[in-house]
Formats: sequence, C-alpha cells, structure tokens
Amino acid sequence: MRQKLAWALAAAIVIGGPAAAQNNSQTIDDEALRADATSMFKPIPTVQPAPANNPITRDKAELGKMLFFEPRLSSSHLLSCNTCHNLGMGGVDGLETSVGHGWQSGPRNAPTVYNAFFNIAQFWDGRAQDLREQAKGPIQAAVEMNATPDRVLAVLNSMPEYRKLFERAFPGEEETLTFDNVAKAIEAFEATLITPGAHFDQYLEGNLAALNGTEKKGLRLFIDRGCASCHNGINVGGGEYYAFGVVEQPGAEILPPDDKGRFAVTETASDEYVFRAPSLRNVALTAPYFHSGRVWDLKQAVEIMSTSQLGTELQADEVEAIVAFLHTLTGEQPDVTYPMLPASTPTTPRPVLMAPNTAQGAQ
Amino acid sequence: MRQKLAWALAAAIVIGGPAAAQNNSQTIDDEALRADATSMFKPIPTVQPAPANNPITRDKAELGKMLFFEPRLSSSHLLSCNTCHNLGMGGVDGLETSVGHGWQSGPRNAPTVYNAFFNIAQFWDGRAQDLREQAKGPIQAAVEMNATPDRVLAVLNSMPEYRKLFERAFPGEEETLTFDNVAKAIEAFEATLITPGAHFDQYLEGNLAALNGTEKKGLRLFIDRGCASCHNGINVGGGEYYAFGVVEQPGAEILPPDDKGRFAVTETASDEYVFRAPSLRNVALTAPYFHSGRVWDLKQAVEIMSTSQLGTELQADEVEAIVAFLHTLTGEQPDVTYPMLPASTPTTPRPVLMAPNTAQGAQ
Repeated sequence: MRQKLAWALAAAIVIGGPAAAQNNSQTIDDEALRADATSMFKPIPTVQPAPANNPITRDKAELGKMLFFEPRLSSSHLLSCNTCHNLGMGGVDGLETSVGHGWQSGPRNAPTVYNAFFNIAQFWDGRAQDLREQAKGPIQAAVEMNATPDRVLAVLNSMPEYRKLFERAFPGEEETLTFDNVAKAIEAFEATLITPGAHFDQYLEGNLAALNGTEKKGLRLFIDRGCASCHNGINVGGGEYYAFGVVEQPGAEILPPDDKGRFAVTETASDEYVFRAPSLRNVALTAPYFHSGRVWDLKQAVEIMSTSQLGTELQADEVEAIVAFLHTLTGEQPDVTYPMLPASTPTTPRPVLMAPNTAQGAQ
Repeated sequence: MRQKLAWALAAAIVIGGPAAAQNNSQTIDDEALRADATSMFKPIPTVQPAPANNPITRDKAELGKMLFFEPRLSSSHLLSCNTCHNLGMGGVDGLETSVGHGWQSGPRNAPTVYNAFFNIAQFWDGRAQDLREQAKGPIQAAVEMNATPDRVLAVLNSMPEYRKLFERAFPGEEETLTFDNVAKAIEAFEATLITPGAHFDQYLEGNLAALNGTEKKGLRLFIDRGCASCHNGINVGGGEYYAFGVVEQPGAEILPPDDKGRFAVTETASDEYVFRAPSLRNVALTAPYFHSGRVWDLKQAVEIMSTSQLGTELQADEVEAIVAFLHTLTGEQPDVTYPMLPASTPTTPRPVLMAPNTAQGAQ
C-alpha cells in the first residue's frame, strides 16, 4: 500500500514539472489533459451496477428503499439509514460525527451512501467488504440504531405486507425474511444510488466544454500534484487505503490519536491511522470533511491534504482551482419517491427509547 | 361545547334504538345508511384545498416540501418536520410522545399531518389557528427542534438556492425570506398532504360496494352509538373540542392529570381535559392513540372511547365492526418525491447538539 502510494507520488512529481509550468502560463493542453484524466478516472455509469451474488430486481430494490427509510429498524423507531445518510443532503447528515440512539455522538463522520457501491470496501476503515455487510453494522451498533437481528426480524415479521414483499423480492428461497435478506435488499437499493452526469463525467465522455478554464486548471493540478494518486477511479477515491498524514500528521483535532483507523481491522502496525481514501464524488455536498468531520470548508480540506499527504503548500489560486474542479464532481442526484411503509400491528415490538449501557461501532 | 355534545349524544340515543335492532338482525338498510353518512361526513376532496391568504403555487409548495424535510431547521440539523410527522408512516412517528432535541420526550403524541388542513385548528389543544401558525411551534420548542426564527433565517439565508426559491415562491414581496414565509411555504405543502380515495369516501360518493357488510355494520354503529357526534365532517373528527372523559374519565395512565388540554389555552375551567377530537382519517396507520399515546390497539381505543365518552359498553362484535369501519378511512397516501436540499455553505450556522436548559412546547 505504502509502496503503491510512494510510486504514485514519484510519478506525480515527474509529471508535475511541465504541468506546473503550463499552469503558470494559464494554458492547458486540452487533449493531453483529457488523455491523462481518462487514464486515471472513469465516469459514473448510467446503468445500474450489479452487486455480486445479489441480482437487483425492481421488487428487491423497492423493498430495500422501504428498509432504508424504515425507522422501526432502530430500537427507538426513530432512526433510519436515511437519518445519517440523508438522500436529500448528498447522502450524509452534515454533522461532524453522526448522532444515534439516545443522542449519542458516534466516533466518525458518516460517509455518503451515494456511489458507495464503487468503493473497494465500506466504512472508513474498510471493515465491511460490501454494502450488504455494511448495512448490518449501524442497525446493531449501540451508538447508532441499537437493534438486534432478532428484533429487526420480529418487527418485519409483525407486518404481513413486509412478509409478502420479502417473498416477492427473494422468490424460491425457503426462508425469505432473514437478516441476510434485509441487508441484501438494502444493498440492492443502495446500488441504485449513483449520481451520473457530473460535469466532470461529461468531460471524461468527450465534452471538453463541460469544464471551464479554472476547473481544468484544477483538474491539471489535481493530477499533477498527486491528489489523483489516492483519489482516482470511478469514485475519485474510495479505492485503496492510505495513512492520514503520510508526509506530516495533521493536529489531534483533525486526526484524533485514539482512532487508529484500519489498524483496528488488520492489527498491523503499518495500518495505524490508515483509512480508505474517501470518494470525492459530490464532495461539495458532504461537508464536514475527514473521518473526524472537523473541517467544514472544502478549501481548508484541500490545504490540509496538500501538506499532510503531499508535503507541498499550494498557492491560493491553486487551491481555488482544485476546489472549482471538485465542484464538477457533483452528479445528478436520483429521483426517489418517498416510500409508504406498512402500519405497525399489535405484535410489532414497541419502540425502546432507553439509552443503552454500552456504546460501540459506527461508520 | 358541552351543550353541543349533550345534544348530539341525546340525538344518538334516539336514533340508536331502531338501528341497534337492525344490527342484531345483521340487515342494514343501504340507502338509509348512506343517507345518514352523507349528512354527517364528507369525502376528502380530490382537488387541493386553498389556505386563506396563502395561495398555493407549485413553487411555494415545492419550497414547503424542502422545508418540511429540512433537518437544518432544527438546531441539531438532525430533526425535520418529517421526523415526527413521517409521510411514510401515516404522517406520524409511531411513538407514544415524540422525541426531540437531546432525545427529550415531548408531552403529547404527534398528530398526523395528513389532512390536517381540514382540522378546525392545530395541536391537540387547538392553540394554533392554522397550519402556518402550527409550523412555527415545533421549530422553536426546546423539546422539539430547539431553534429560533433568527437561526432559521440565518441557515436559509446562507444558501443562495434557498434565497432564490423564496423569491420565486413569494414574488413581488419586498422581503421574501422571512419566518412568516417559511411557515407559509410549509403550510402550502402541508395543504397538499391529503389522502382521498378511501373506501369510505368511495362509499360516500355512491359506490355502495366499497364497504363490506361488517364495515357497514361498523359505520351504522359509529353513527348510532354516538361516535359520529364528535367524529364527523370531512376529517371524521378534528372539527371541535370535547372533554376526554365526558361520561367517565379514563385512568391517569391514559389521561395524565397534569395535562389539562385546552384549559392551558383558554384558562376556562370548563376546558379542563378538553382536547380537539382527533381526525380518524388514516387512524389504522397512526397508533399509538390519544394525546398521551398510551393505547396501541385500535380495538382498545374504541372500547375506551365507548365507556369514557358514551357511557356504554360495546359488544365484542360491535367493537370489531367499528374497527373494520375505521380501517376504511385509510386513504391514498400521496406520491412525494424526496427533495434534494441545497448544500450548506461556510456561512451556514453549525449544528448545535447540546441539550437545552429548558424544555417546553410540543404537539
């Protein structure tokens, strides 16, 4: 991992020379820039992606949407997936760290659900392999939805409409209403939450006028200064793990010492303070930034990245150009019809508002 | 008020004689029942109702929808109107009493926002004259959204898209982004939240087959036993104020002694424990019941009403028939496309999660 980053940085420095000169003269070779960009990035596809071993059907995705907005998956009946991954707010909650059961603050900033399918793994530390594994986490975390698989199944089983919908979504299965299928349905819906059509994607697809001069300058810098070494691919990030502070660690307010990131997953010393590089898709919508959520201004986030990850100090106009480029990553947010949920029945477990004794898990 | 109820009850008893006989023989005069029903109830209109001095335009209602789903109207940025008036759950939260800022429990059960326009006034005690006055309450209540008008305006003003949308929604006004206009936009959206097409409405409109035998028996009982004395009109309730426990007060767990209802609004002794009769529209979706939210089963709610309000004990099959009739009040829930909200900017006030010192207000 480290080797890969070092190589990428070295490459960036080599490429950086002439490109930097280009920036100074404010002239950008359009064809060369697009060639560089298409070699490092891919547009969000306009067709629905396909999760492994979980074919998306309309029935399954519609059920998944209901579950995504279903507050009765939480023990309080108050928090749904959408509470922290608000589809109207770039797929996040806009809080430093999420608030869950009993008004507890969780340890990390909620990553966006949009385009999450394209990430190499889920959560900041990549501890969930895919969206279906991820979905099971917050439901059970005491600091988030504070439920149990048994409770979730009791809730869903208490409503005949849900039983019917699970049968339709998972035809031919002997037992359809299972916690695994809850997660699979949510994954199927979340896989539809993609945001194609960003200006940057239009540019990648050949519309050179989709970015203006400043945005192109930002893209040139983003590639040449090394940002794209970690933030590349379909999701402009989300594809690999890197140390936060590879060159210089930011202060404790931004990188809290007791959150060692991926180290908790791999228990490997070199994974201390290693996190999955976040996707920068829709980054203009998803403040505050970093796993600690302590930085509210995208400009400041770019400055911190340049010193901590690249060991370079960007000029003010360079930061502005990169921020302008990052705004071109905002895609078309999907139309989502708010789901109508089945009514509770006398056998539906009642909401439990009590604060839990223990707090663990999250993002 | 009391006089009116007494008169209605007397009338109900007079009518009740022959009708009860009819019920015993399980034969119902279809034409007579429909004539009685159309004299006491009206179907939900299929056209949008018009709030006074607040014409609904598409721009205003769309803005109102955004504000209805806007968690940044709360100081935590976590709670929106939709949190407690969930459009996917019959317009309620399914909790005994709502949970607000700092995980505080409010004093009363959240009334549904669906068809709320047709109520005589808003809140259980009718302290808000209309939806626009109502909308201002929870935003400011420390136990709910815990914001202030100044904060709300600072939040909305910080986002250029909102400024533009207010200009469009309130054309020609000198100052468009005001707290009054926030409330007016929310009212305009909420006035669109009506649920026409219930089986009962189809019946009122002349389709006698829209109710089955049990449901018709329930409707007959609902009229003859006096339920319809308080629960009548378009909203099958919501039109007047009545004492809870006019014949016999229910226990303190259902009628908490320290919530004196409309007395707090009028300071008139005869208004102690007086509440607005809730609308029974979509009542099968809005458990738990009563202002205290302590009754989860619609059957039990009907039983409590019959003893406390009518001084009669219904037979089991009568309760079942009334409950079957109440299920025919579930209308078509509207299609609502989830709104995409503008991104916060560096000038947007940050979320405040701290618990407030005081708790007041609610439903």
